[in-house]
Amino acid sequence: MAETTATGPTVAPSDAPTYIMADDLRDFAARLLVKVDVPEDHARIVADVLVRGDLRGVDSHGVARLYTYYIGRIQKGLIDPRPTVTVTRETPVSVAIDGGNGLGHIASHQAMSTVVEKAKTTGMAMATVKSSNHFGIAGYYAMMALEHNLIGMAFTNTQPLVMPLWGSKVMTGTNPIAVAVPAKNERSWVLDMATSVVPKGKLEVAARKGVPMPPGWAVDKNGLPTTDPNEALNGGAPMPLGGTRELGGHKGYDLAIFVDIFSGVLSGAGYGPHLTATSASDIGHFFMAFRPDLFIDLDEFETRMDAFLRELKETPPSPGVTRVLVAGEPEDEATEKYGRSGVPIHPKVMSELTRLSEELGVPLPRHSTAPLA
Amino acid sequence: MAETTATGPTVAPSDAPTYIMADDLRDFAARLLVKVDVPEDHARIVADVLVRGDLRGVDSHGVARLYTYYIGRIQKGLIDPRPTVTVTRETPVSVAIDGGNGLGHIASHQAMSTVVEKAKTTGMAMATVKSSNHFGIAGYYAMMALEHNLIGMAFTNTQPLVMPLWGSKVMTGTNPIAVAVPAKNERSWVLDMATSVVPKGKLEVAARKGVPMPPGWAVDKNGLPTTDPNEALNGGAPMPLGGTRELGGHKGYDLAIFVDIFSGVLSGAGYGPHLTATSASDIGHFFMAFRPDLFIDLDEFETRMDAFLRELKETPPSPGVTRVLVAGEPEDEATEKYGRSGVPIHPKVMSELTRLSEELGVPLPRHSTAPLA
Repeated sequence: MAETTATGPTVAPSDAPTYIMADDLRDFAARLLVKVDVPEDHARIVADVLVRGDLRGVDSHGVARLYTYYIGRIQKGLIDPRPTVTVTRETPVSVAIDGGNGLGHIASHQAMSTVVEKAKTTGMAMATVKSSNHFGIAGYYAMMALEHNLIGMAFTNTQPLVMPLWGSKVMTGTNPIAVAVPAKNERSWVLDMATSVVPKGKLEVAARKGVPMPPGWAVDKNGLPTTDPNEALNGGAPMPLGGTRELGGHKGYDLAIFVDIFSGVLSGAGYGPHLTATSASDIGHFFMAFRPDLFIDLDEFETRMDAFLRELKETPPSPGVTRVLVAGEPEDEATEKYGRSGVPIHPKVMSELTRLSEELGVPLPRHSTAPLA
Repeated sequence: MAETTATGPTVAPSDAPTYIMADDLRDFAARLLVKVDVPEDHARIVADVLVRGDLRGVDSHGVARLYTYYIGRIQKGLIDPRPTVTVTRETPVSVAIDGGNGLGHIASHQAMSTVVEKAKTTGMAMATVKSSNHFGIAGYYAMMALEHNLIGMAFTNTQPLVMPLWGSKVMTGTNPIAVAVPAKNERSWVLDMATSVVPKGKLEVAARKGVPMPPGWAVDKNGLPTTDPNEALNGGAPMPLGGTRELGGHKGYDLAIFVDIFSGVLSGAGYGPHLTATSASDIGHFFMAFRPDLFIDLDEFETRMDAFLRELKETPPSPGVTRVLVAGEPEDEATEKYGRSGVPIHPKVMSELTRLSEELGVPLPRHSTAPLA
């Protein structure tokens, strides 16, 4: 249930997307990264994570970030394109990794791969990563467990964007929680959620449109609820999940801290207010995987998952909606759709990709203003 | 930040509590349980969990439930007072337990004790429990990790009380998440939160008072938002954390499913709509503990926790509030206060305890309408 799958207004002509097939987009993104000195194998991993975000409809975390979060920061010397990734501690059930201030995807992919291998042997394993940067969608790493019939989890902290309940200063990130659970014939259950009500991007959209925000989205610079997006963007913040105290905002705030303790405090990375977008960011991540058959036969577990997921989907819907969703379902449907049509790229993102294409000398892939299939 | 620590109206005379010292209350509760055939050592564990709930200000989960959730269900033959608790699977990092339809506290205490011992040796461990019943506050078990300098977690499912976002049938419980993290000089950080906006009890309070509920608390029998507590109680439900789709209600719903997958589907217990309050309930739990020094020196970890907690508490507060809280702080403050004054017991609960005292022949402990110290 990505933020981006919410029903939105009809597409204005200026918002009409360009379509690029996922394979082509992946290849293009990788080639751009290679041009800023990222090794080929690393570039392929980063591109795969980003395009997976786009395919899942989480286009805020896909190639839209290629310049701002990754290439631009490499060019500014804020991210090392050829990091020395080191294991600082290791046991049969754990690994602690120093990402060497590289692209977050590289150390994270290594961490989750190690966790998966260990969990297959020992039953469960965890990893932390420090000295890292943004790693794309958290769900990607949790989902790495699925093909091994493991349950996977991934957390990350992010630069501070959210105020604690009752506070007037941003102290936590949007700190997402991702959990991936295999089923048998049903799709895997994949949760990937920020612990804020909405991402900051939604405040920016409201400001651009000049419309008030729904009550419960954001606070002003004093930490007081506001529906004015300009007030929210002028020193304010998105609210933690739950919003006000009355509606459980302390829970969203505490979930963000939970994620930051595991990702930041435990890993030795930066945490809370100490992460910054303007210098080397020292973001931290946390990963875990374990075998369901520690507790119950795998086949029985996956059969029970199937039954639960079917029952949830068959819940009688409320008036005005067509169905009850389960986590990961809209993203899987987007993946199937965009796998056929090509990934829709917003005009602003297309402009940036075009600029990068010219600047770095990588030809734009085949693209079209109509779905490709 | 328990639900019960919200600032409320001034206490009406009919709500004036009776005070009982925690040790006396614990002893009384244990003796009542022994009278319905619970073994002495088991009764002590259950009483300790319940009174810890009361001490932490979570009085909804304390001795208020002694009859309805425990003694009454034993008397009706729904809970076995002398369960055969069995280990069904075990590895160096895991244990799967069948609670034998006993009081949930017994199998849970055994499960978390085992997890703690294993984690001290292997670094981390997990447990599931099936064929169980309500276990009191989830935080109790997560906190069992703290004295061993471990991070602890506890989940449980509960009977269905909450509708999925966009659904019109209760399919999940209020499925709490508890996480306990040790610090050095600061208090431990202890999260213990239901994944619904509010417990059902808050809807009942509004109905009794005849006042509308805040928008975002509950839905009616069709799954549509309502502020009328009578509509909510007539086939409706509390909303998942986040409330509506616009405010992230899908996230609260997904967190409840996450907890139910780990507690119910994985353990082999009942899950989702299959848990019932009217028969043997087959509730499931999940527990985990791990050593921070898998990733970073324990002293450094706890020092970093201290720094983060202090920074959070020193966040400049919003106008109209005095301070930013951290998870577990109000509960620790309540414990200190009630440790001195005695535990405040609501008149309705006191009536029930008095009735149990007479029925089971256990004298009421020393009590007073004024704080005892």
